[in-house]
Amino acid sequence: MDIISRLSLVVKDCPDFPRKGILFKDIMPIFKDPDLVKDTCQTLVDKISEIEKPDVIVGIEARGFLIGPIMAQQLNAKFVPIRKKGKLPRECYSVKYEKEYGFDEFDMQIDALEENDKVVIVDDLLATGGTLEAAKMLCDKSGAKVIAHSVIFELEFLNGRDKLKDTPVISLVRYN
Amino acid sequence: MDIISRLSLVVKDCPDFPRKGILFKDIMPIFKDPDLVKDTCQTLVDKISEIEKPDVIVGIEARGFLIGPIMAQQLNAKFVPIRKKGKLPRECYSVKYEKEYGFDEFDMQIDALEENDKVVIVDDLLATGGTLEAAKMLCDKSGAKVIAHSVIFELEFLNGRDKLKDTPVISLVRYN
Repeated sequence: MDIISRLSLVVKDCPDFPRKGILFKDIMPIFKDPDLVKDTCQTLVDKISEIEKPDVIVGIEARGFLIGPIMAQQLNAKFVPIRKKGKLPRECYSVKYEKEYGFDEFDMQIDALEENDKVVIVDDLLATGGTLEAAKMLCDKSGAKVIAHSVIFELEFLNGRDKLKDTPVISLVRYN
Repeated sequence: MDIISRLSLVVKDCPDFPRKGILFKDIMPIFKDPDLVKDTCQTLVDKISEIEKPDVIVGIEARGFLIGPIMAQQLNAKFVPIRKKGKLPRECYSVKYEKEYGFDEFDMQIDALEENDKVVIVDDLLATGGTLEAAKMLCDKSGAKVIAHSVIFELEFLNGRDKLKDTPVISLVRYN
């Protein structure tokens, strides 16, 4: 069975979570199958490598932390976290953004990336694109070059790609 | 250089973060060195395997997510997340607990673990033990068997082990 079918089989639809009107994709069952985790990350890494080998995987708290560090291992790349406001010590860049449900603020440590680092931003899912757009703004502040966004799932009907038009988006399972 | 020296060299002390009087250990520099990440996780996994091979790695949000899934890959084991209250969809077990600074509440999905699963709970650091104790309570509710707690860093002067006395604690770098 191909990776898209294997992922589609285990992901659970959760209507009206965390707010009424949102169809949440519960990705946690993926992590009960270590081969599926490995193959999902490796498939994303293979698609990234077709563009360019990155120096750094930037993972977005919290679900980006579940796959980003494994992808960084597979690429022999650095891993850098983006966290919710106030969670990272030392001096940080900050950015406010709007997401599918409400507003939030992200931090990244100012010494996390170096100028001209080639970066791929990793999260579990692309919805409206607000989260990935904010993550790219943080990377841009460091002078790093974001070569791609990489997600497992994409809610195509929310047109998140339109917001990220300057940067390629790699996704495995697309819902429309 | 041994793993303890390599870790000690890169971890940054952050006094008075996130509250006055707390000496925070910034572990993020570890993740800029993919070999150090691999060797840290493998060393923990080797020590776990000396006790017993677990079926499941349970990782605590958010820093437990950075190493838990890699350790699960190295062990060919399942990975299950414990998250802050309200972040996981579907039916959850919940537990309130006190941590080094303030109170919090954790959730774990009720179908995440099976009865008699052998579980290792993973976090980055053992401080007062409140977080790991709460995580074990959640696993106990499922009827799973927690065979060990596993952390990279241990603040021995806070005597967190006393709170976890029934369960072995594996740690690499100890501060006293």
